[in-house]
Amino acid sequence: MDLLDEPVPGVGTYEDFNTIDWVREKSKDRDRHREITSKSKESTWALVNSVCDAFSGWLLMLLIGLMSGALAGGIDISAHWMTDLKEGVCLNGFWFNHEHCCWTSNETTFQERDKCPQWKSWAELIIGATEGPFAYIMNYLMYVCWALLFSFLAVTLVRAFAPYACGSGIPEIKTILSGFIIRGYLGKWTLVIKTITLVLAVSSGLSLGKEGPLVHVACCCGNILCHLFTKYRKNEAKRREVLSAAAAVGVSVAFGAPIGGVLFSLEEVSYYFPLKTLWRSFFAALVAAFTLRSINPFGNSRLVLFYVEFHTPWHLLELIPFILLGIFGGIWGTTWLGHYPVLEVLVVTAVTAVVAFPNSYTRTSTSELISELFNDCGLLDSSKLCNYDNANVTKSSNELPDRPAGNDVYTAMWQLSLALVFKMLITVVTFGMKVPSGLFIPSMAVGAIAGRLLGIGMEQLAYYHHDWAIFRGWCSPGADCITPGLYAMVGAAACLGGVTRMTVSLVVIMFELTGGLEYIVPLMAAAMTSKWVADAIGREGIYEAHIRLNGYPFLEAKEEFSHKTLAMDVMRPRRSDLPLSVVTQDGMTVEDVETMITDTTYSGFPVVVSHESQRLVGFVLRRDLTISIDNARQRQDGIVSTSRVFFTEYTPPQPPNSPPPLKLRGIMDLSPFTVTDHTAMDIVVDIFRKLGLRQCLITHNGRLLGIITKKDILKHVAQIANRDPDSILFN
Amino acid sequence: MDLLDEPVPGVGTYEDFNTIDWVREKSKDRDRHREITSKSKESTWALVNSVCDAFSGWLLMLLIGLMSGALAGGIDISAHWMTDLKEGVCLNGFWFNHEHCCWTSNETTFQERDKCPQWKSWAELIIGATEGPFAYIMNYLMYVCWALLFSFLAVTLVRAFAPYACGSGIPEIKTILSGFIIRGYLGKWTLVIKTITLVLAVSSGLSLGKEGPLVHVACCCGNILCHLFTKYRKNEAKRREVLSAAAAVGVSVAFGAPIGGVLFSLEEVSYYFPLKTLWRSFFAALVAAFTLRSINPFGNSRLVLFYVEFHTPWHLLELIPFILLGIFGGIWGTTWLGHYPVLEVLVVTAVTAVVAFPNSYTRTSTSELISELFNDCGLLDSSKLCNYDNANVTKSSNELPDRPAGNDVYTAMWQLSLALVFKMLITVVTFGMKVPSGLFIPSMAVGAIAGRLLGIGMEQLAYYHHDWAIFRGWCSPGADCITPGLYAMVGAAACLGGVTRMTVSLVVIMFELTGGLEYIVPLMAAAMTSKWVADAIGREGIYEAHIRLNGYPFLEAKEEFSHKTLAMDVMRPRRSDLPLSVVTQDGMTVEDVETMITDTTYSGFPVVVSHESQRLVGFVLRRDLTISIDNARQRQDGIVSTSRVFFTEYTPPQPPNSPPPLKLRGIMDLSPFTVTDHTAMDIVVDIFRKLGLRQCLITHNGRLLGIITKKDILKHVAQIANRDPDSILFN
Repeated sequence: MDLLDEPVPGVGTYEDFNTIDWVREKSKDRDRHREITSKSKESTWALVNSVCDAFSGWLLMLLIGLMSGALAGGIDISAHWMTDLKEGVCLNGFWFNHEHCCWTSNETTFQERDKCPQWKSWAELIIGATEGPFAYIMNYLMYVCWALLFSFLAVTLVRAFAPYACGSGIPEIKTILSGFIIRGYLGKWTLVIKTITLVLAVSSGLSLGKEGPLVHVACCCGNILCHLFTKYRKNEAKRREVLSAAAAVGVSVAFGAPIGGVLFSLEEVSYYFPLKTLWRSFFAALVAAFTLRSINPFGNSRLVLFYVEFHTPWHLLELIPFILLGIFGGIWGTTWLGHYPVLEVLVVTAVTAVVAFPNSYTRTSTSELISELFNDCGLLDSSKLCNYDNANVTKSSNELPDRPAGNDVYTAMWQLSLALVFKMLITVVTFGMKVPSGLFIPSMAVGAIAGRLLGIGMEQLAYYHHDWAIFRGWCSPGADCITPGLYAMVGAAACLGGVTRMTVSLVVIMFELTGGLEYIVPLMAAAMTSKWVADAIGREGIYEAHIRLNGYPFLEAKEEFSHKTLAMDVMRPRRSDLPLSVVTQDGMTVEDVETMITDTTYSGFPVVVSHESQRLVGFVLRRDLTISIDNARQRQDGIVSTSRVFFTEYTPPQPPNSPPPLKLRGIMDLSPFTVTDHTAMDIVVDIFRKLGLRQCLITHNGRLLGIITKKDILKHVAQIANRDPDSILFN
Repeated sequence: MDLLDEPVPGVGTYEDFNTIDWVREKSKDRDRHREITSKSKESTWALVNSVCDAFSGWLLMLLIGLMSGALAGGIDISAHWMTDLKEGVCLNGFWFNHEHCCWTSNETTFQERDKCPQWKSWAELIIGATEGPFAYIMNYLMYVCWALLFSFLAVTLVRAFAPYACGSGIPEIKTILSGFIIRGYLGKWTLVIKTITLVLAVSSGLSLGKEGPLVHVACCCGNILCHLFTKYRKNEAKRREVLSAAAAVGVSVAFGAPIGGVLFSLEEVSYYFPLKTLWRSFFAALVAAFTLRSINPFGNSRLVLFYVEFHTPWHLLELIPFILLGIFGGIWGTTWLGHYPVLEVLVVTAVTAVVAFPNSYTRTSTSELISELFNDCGLLDSSKLCNYDNANVTKSSNELPDRPAGNDVYTAMWQLSLALVFKMLITVVTFGMKVPSGLFIPSMAVGAIAGRLLGIGMEQLAYYHHDWAIFRGWCSPGADCITPGLYAMVGAAACLGGVTRMTVSLVVIMFELTGGLEYIVPLMAAAMTSKWVADAIGREGIYEAHIRLNGYPFLEAKEEFSHKTLAMDVMRPRRSDLPLSVVTQDGMTVEDVETMITDTTYSGFPVVVSHESQRLVGFVLRRDLTISIDNARQRQDGIVSTSRVFFTEYTPPQPPNSPPPLKLRGIMDLSPFTVTDHTAMDIVVDIFRKLGLRQCLITHNGRLLGIITKKDILKHVAQIANRDPDSILFN
C-alpha cells in the first residue's frame, strides 16, 4: 500500500541548465540492456526485440548520415544559387545558378562559359546595358541590396524564432556533450531556422563560413532522430554518444573529410567517447560524405572540397617560411579573444558588400577564393594569379619551372593584400553577430591569402636570386622549386589551427581536403607552431573562451589541474559556514524535510545514520525528494506533515495512532561517491572528469564532512586563475 | 630524530608481475611538474630547466621515431637480402640482394632484369647448370637448407638469450600499457634478439609477418630511450604514455601508415591515451615513416607498402561479394583460437620450404605476393594473373574493358587455390612457435588470395554472362566493370579484421596502405561484417585470447560488464572468511605489524581508527610497510619489536622507559578509494578501468567492510563467463 512499485514520474530526470550524472545514466542504460538480454532468452519475439535494439544504434547512424548529408547538400546548392543571385539571374529559370544556367547552353566555348546569353546581370536585365559606369553602379547597387535583404532576413528569423541558432554552436555542443542540459538547443526549430538563416547569412557575403554551423545542424539532426528510439530518447548519456558521432558527421559534410571529422569529434568536442562510438561515428561520417557526394553540389563529383595536385616536393629549407606562417596563424588565433560587442548586422553587411564588390577576390565566395589560392598554376590557367612569363617554357615537359611573374600577378598581389586586410578586420567584427556563423572558412581564407603572398614572394626571390646560398643546389634556373599554392595551404592550416587549437584533426582534415599525403610534414610544422604561439600569447582557444564567457559549467579535460590544494580546502561547508544540511535515515518527519528543502537551495542532500555519528548512508536529490513527497501527499493515504520519513531498508513498527511512514529508500542513491578530506584536488578533478560526476562527498575518518560539486571545482579553478569565481553561472 | 625526512629508497616502487597504481603515479608526476613550475620563477637556470622538461617529451618522440624507422629499414633490407640468399648469390658482392645486384647491370633490358649475369642461382654456382631437373633439385635443396639454417638460428637465439622475444608481443604490450609490470619484456636484450631473429624468421620463409613484432621493437626502443629522461624513467604512468606512442610508431613503420598507426594504438593497444599523447604519437609516427622513407628499403621511395591505382569505381551490387569476403574473414579470424601446441620449429620450416618451393606464389615473400594480388592488370603487365585475351582492346583508350581470361590465368588460379589451402594450414601451425611472428601479413595474404579468386570469378562471370539481370546496365560488353585487385584488397582487410577485430584503424591502415579514398566503403563493409561474424562465432580477438591464456590481469575496456552483482558480492572477506586484516592507527606495535605481514599474503592493509569503530583512515601497502620497518630497525635508534607504530598526525607523549614510537604516516595513502557495499559492480568496474585502480575499499554506513582488488574483479568476471577464476595468475 505504501510502497510505490511503479516509479514516480519525473524522478531521475533533469531540469534545464543542469548537469547530468553520467554514472547514473550509464548505470540506467546497463540495467535496461541487462533486462533486454535476459528477456531475449525467453521468447522469439523478445529475441527479435533484442537484436533490433542492438542494431538501432547503427540504424540511427545511417539516418543521421543521410539526413545531414542531404541537408548539407541543400545548403550548399541554395547558398551557391543565392550568392549568384546577387549578381544576376538566369532566364531559363530563376532557380538556376550561374554555372548551372550556362551548362545547358551549347553555344559557348569553354573560355566563354561564364558569359552565356541566358545569364543576365542585373544591369543587363533592368537597364539593358552590360558595359559602362552606369551598368557597374547598377550591379553594385543590386549586389548591396540583395546582401542587405539576406542578412536582414537572417537576423530577423533568428531573433523571432530561434535565438539558439546564432553563432557556430560548437562551444555549446561541447558543453552539452560534457553533460549539460540546454533544452531546445538541438531542437527542431533550431534546426529549421539555423538551416535557413545559414544559407541567408552565407549568401549575404558576410565574412563567415558554414562549416561550424554545419556541426550544429548535424547535432540537431542527431538529437531529433534520437527521439525515434527509446534507448536514446530516455538516456542522456546514450544520447550524448550519438551527438558525438553527429559532430563528426558535421565536419565530414563540411569538408568532405570523414576521418578528420571523427578525429575532430574525438579531439575537440567530445567528452565521453568510447571506442564503440568511434566506429559508429566513422560509419555515420562516411554515409554523410557519400550522400553529399551523390547530391554533388559542387558539380565535380569529388569528395574533397579543394582538390590540389602539386607537382614538386617541398624542400627542407621551406620549413622556415612554413613556421613563419605558423606564427602568423598563432597570432591570428589570439586576435579573437577581444570579443567585440555585437554590432548592428545591417551596418556590417552594408560595409562588407560595399567594400567587397570592387575587389574580385572579396566578391567571390570565400571557398572559391581559397580554391583559387591553393591552385598550382598550370600553363592553361587563365587566372590572374597564374599570369607568368612563359617565354622560356617548353610546352612538352610536365613540370613548370619557376618563371618571372607577369603584370597581372603584381595586380593580383595588390588586390590580395587589400583583401587580406579587409578580411582580417571584417571577420573580427562579424564574429559575435547574432546570425549563424563559422570561423573555419574565413580563418582559412586569411591564412591562404597570407600564404599565397609569401609563396609568390619566395618564388620570385628564388627566380631572381637563384645564386643566393639558401637557393643554391635547389632552385637552379629552370627548376620548379617553389609552389605558392602549397604556401597558401599551409597558411590556411596555420590560421585554422591558431583559432581552434586543433592538432591531429586539423592535419588530417587538411590532408583529406587536399588529398596530399606528401605535405603532412609542412602542415604539421605550421599547425604545431601556430598552437604553441597561440597558447603562449593567450591560453584559450575560441571555444574555451566562448564557454567561459557564457559561464557554462565545463571541466576542461586538456588542462592539467596544477595546484596543490586538498579536497578539504574546496569543499562546502567552509569553516565559517553553517553545518552541512543532511537528512537522517529515520529521524525526520515530512515537515522537517519540506522545511529543509525550502530553507536551502542545494541540489541534493546526504543521508546519514544520525546527526551525532555523521555516518553516510546515501545521497538524495532535491528534485527527486520534492517530486516524491508531492506525489505521496496526493496519492498515498494518510501521508501528512507529521509522517516520519524512512530511508532504511526495514521500517520499525510505528506506535498506534501515528500516521503511516513514508518510505523513500527507492529514490536514494545508495552508492554516492566519497573521497577523504586529504585527497589532493588534482585527483578529485580527475575523478570528476573521468567518471562525469555532479557531486562527491567528503569524509574524514569515516565521518561525513562536506560536499564538492562540479560548480565548486569550477569556481576553485577560476579563483586560482585570478578570474571571478561567480562567472560560473550554472550547476 | 625519528622523522625520516628523506624518502626511504624503494617505497613507491613496484615488484615484477604486479599492477601499478595509476592514480598514485599520475599524482607523483603532477607533484614533480608543480615543483619544476614553481622553481622556474626563481632563477633563469630553473626556467631553462623547466622549458627543457617541457620539450623532453617531444625530443623523446623524435628519437623514438628516428630509431624505430632506422631499425625497421634495417630489418626490411636484411630480410630482403636473406630471402634472396635462399635462391642464389650476387657475384658483385654477396651482400647485394637480387634486385640490387641486377640494378648495377646495364646490359639487360627491362624484361630481362631478373636474369642478369651477376646473379647466380645456387645450381649455377655449384654445378654450373641453370636448366634441367638436376639444377632444379639443387636449387630446391639449397632453398630448404637455408630456410632450416635461418629458423634454427632464430629459435636458438630466442631460447638462449631472450625468451620474451617470441611471438608478436602485442598482447603483452597491451597488458603492460594497462599498468602491468613485466621486467625485461621491453629491455635491450629483447630488442637486440628480437630484431635479429625477426629477420631470420621472416627470411626462413615461415608463414609469419614482421608487422606485429615491429610494434614490439618500437616499444622496446621507446622503453630504452625513456631511460634518458628522469621524467619518464621514474614514472610508470608517464612511461606508458611513451609506450602508447611507440606502438603507433611500430604500425607506422610496419605499413607506412602514420595515421592508421595512431588509431591502432588508440583503438587496439592503449589503455590510457590522453590527447597530448595523440598529438605526440602522430609526430613520432610521422618521423618514423619519413625516416623509413629516406632509407627507402623497397626502392620505390613510396611511403605506402602496396600502392594501388584502380581505374574503375565499384558498383553497389558488388557489396554482396564484399560482404561474402567479410564472412570469410570473420571465420578465418576465429580459426586461431584453437591454439595448437608448439610444434618443432625445424619440422614446420622444412615442411613450409618443401611445399612452398614448387609453387611460385608461395615461394616469393608474402608481401610481394600481396602486392601482385592487389595489382590491377594493365596492358603491359607480364604477370600470369594478367594474361588476358586482348584481341578486342583498342590500345588508345585508358580504360581496359573486361576481357576473357587466358590460359595462364587459369593456371594461376589453380596455383593460387593450392597456395590458399597451404597458407591457411601452415599459418595455423606456425602461430604459437617460439620465434618472433606476426599474423598481419599471413592473414592479409590468405584474404587477398581468396579475394582475388572471387574477383576473377566475378569478372569472368560478368564477361560471359553480361546479359544476366544483375550485370545488366553495368557490365555491358566493352565496359570495365570488375576489378579483381579490389576484391583482393577487400579480402585482405576482411581477414586482418577477423583476426584482430580492428575497425577504424584497419580501414585507415588499408586506406593509407593503398592510397584509395574511393574504396573506403567496400573496406568498411568487409571489416564490419568480418568483425560481426567473428564476434558471433567466438567472442575474443587474438590478443584477448592470448592475454587470457597467459593469465595476465587485464581489464578489458571494450566489453561491458553486464551482470547485476553488487560490490558486497565480490569483496573480500567473504561471509565465511576471517575478518579483514587491518592496521589500527595507534594501537599496534612493530611486532604486531610484522606478525600480520608474515601471516598474510595481501598486498596492502587498510588503516582504521580502532577495531571497534572500523572507521577508515588510510591504506598502506605491504611492500612500503616492510621496507619502512626494515629501514627503521636498521637506521633509527631504539626501534624494537615493542615500539608502537603510529599512523596519526600527532604522536601522544609516550610513557617513560617505553621505546621510541615509529611514525609511519608518511607511507600511508591518505586518500584511498572507497565505495559503498551497495554500489553496482558495473560502476565499480568502470571506476577501476577509468581511474586505473589496484584496489578499492568497501564501506557500509561509514564502516570499513572489505576490499576489492583488480584480481577479485577479474576472477569474478571469469566466474560469470564460466571460466576458471584461478586462470588469473597475477596481481
